[in-house]
Amino acid sequence: MSTTVEIPPRSGTAFALSKGRTLTVIDPEGCQVADLLAYSAADVREVISNGRTFDYEETIMLTTGNRLWSNRSNTMLTIVADDVGRHDFLLTPCSEATFRHFYPTKPVHRGCFGNLAVALEPFGIGPDAIPTAFNLFMNVPLDGKGRLQVDPPVSEAGDSITLKAEMDLVIGLTACSAYASNGGSFKPINYRID
Amino acid sequence: MSTTVEIPPRSGTAFALSKGRTLTVIDPEGCQVADLLAYSAADVREVISNGRTFDYEETIMLTTGNRLWSNRSNTMLTIVADDVGRHDFLLTPCSEATFRHFYPTKPVHRGCFGNLAVALEPFGIGPDAIPTAFNLFMNVPLDGKGRLQVDPPVSEAGDSITLKAEMDLVIGLTACSAYASNGGSFKPINYRID
Repeated sequence: MSTTVEIPPRSGTAFALSKGRTLTVIDPEGCQVADLLAYSAADVREVISNGRTFDYEETIMLTTGNRLWSNRSNTMLTIVADDVGRHDFLLTPCSEATFRHFYPTKPVHRGCFGNLAVALEPFGIGPDAIPTAFNLFMNVPLDGKGRLQVDPPVSEAGDSITLKAEMDLVIGLTACSAYASNGGSFKPINYRID
Repeated sequence: MSTTVEIPPRSGTAFALSKGRTLTVIDPEGCQVADLLAYSAADVREVISNGRTFDYEETIMLTTGNRLWSNRSNTMLTIVADDVGRHDFLLTPCSEATFRHFYPTKPVHRGCFGNLAVALEPFGIGPDAIPTAFNLFMNVPLDGKGRLQVDPPVSEAGDSITLKAEMDLVIGLTACSAYASNGGSFKPINYRID
């Protein structure tokens, strides 16, 4: 029987996910974001790529049935279930620099970027190897002129997304640390491997 | 006096661009795409990032006045002039894999990805370090549901874009090799450093 693991507020983790297993990421309280990264376990220089994914999937709005592609044009993950249907693949993880830029009057936090860098270090993955993340539940609408804004997620308590591993992976995953992405409060993220 | 250099059709190049200099990329015949990459000359692990750029510029439609940011949250280039105003920062350079995927009946070409990999190798930059490129003159409209398509560029003969280097850079630049991005014909790209 699989166990649900909690990622505490403003923290992150990394773990192996074998080919064929599924990762379910749950927003237990609603309106929270989880930044997801994926690397090939066989060679961590192969990494999730928003550009390859947008190219092959021919959309920037990814949901059930869409695949997430690597920089080497291999499929890493397939989205097999999705309660929310609203995720972001445009923006990089929040970091000390983004806190200084967007929240100059608030305490600086290492953010999802810092949390991912610490969690991925034991897998031999350095901070410069962190690309644009697939930001689960993150709500980034574009207007007709390409301008973007970060709105609160539309996810409700218990909503989840399930992704199937198409190769042996190292996954990085966070409970987001930024104010805008989760409507101003910090909550945990849960995940389960089946 | 600066010299205009031609990048022949379906090829690419790489060169140093010192802080404070400007790079002008010209579409000499019109309706052609040039994929642009930028790395910090001091440490090539610092690289242009679409996610950081979208985050700080708060738009995916970049033109005069917008800056292009690195994965370390530093400004690499500022767009100081732009005849076209229509560029893409969503898609990765065309490659052998994208040729097989999108043009299965046509000869496979190494594409902008292969051309950039060869051109950047002398600078110690490997193919896995090629991220999503800033694709000058590339015309990738999105519909209201986030679906994208690759349309012919709107650039006309002689149109150009000028970018100012905000740090010492290594630049990768191509004359695009894919059918869809340039309306089905392969043309040169010119550039000039001032």
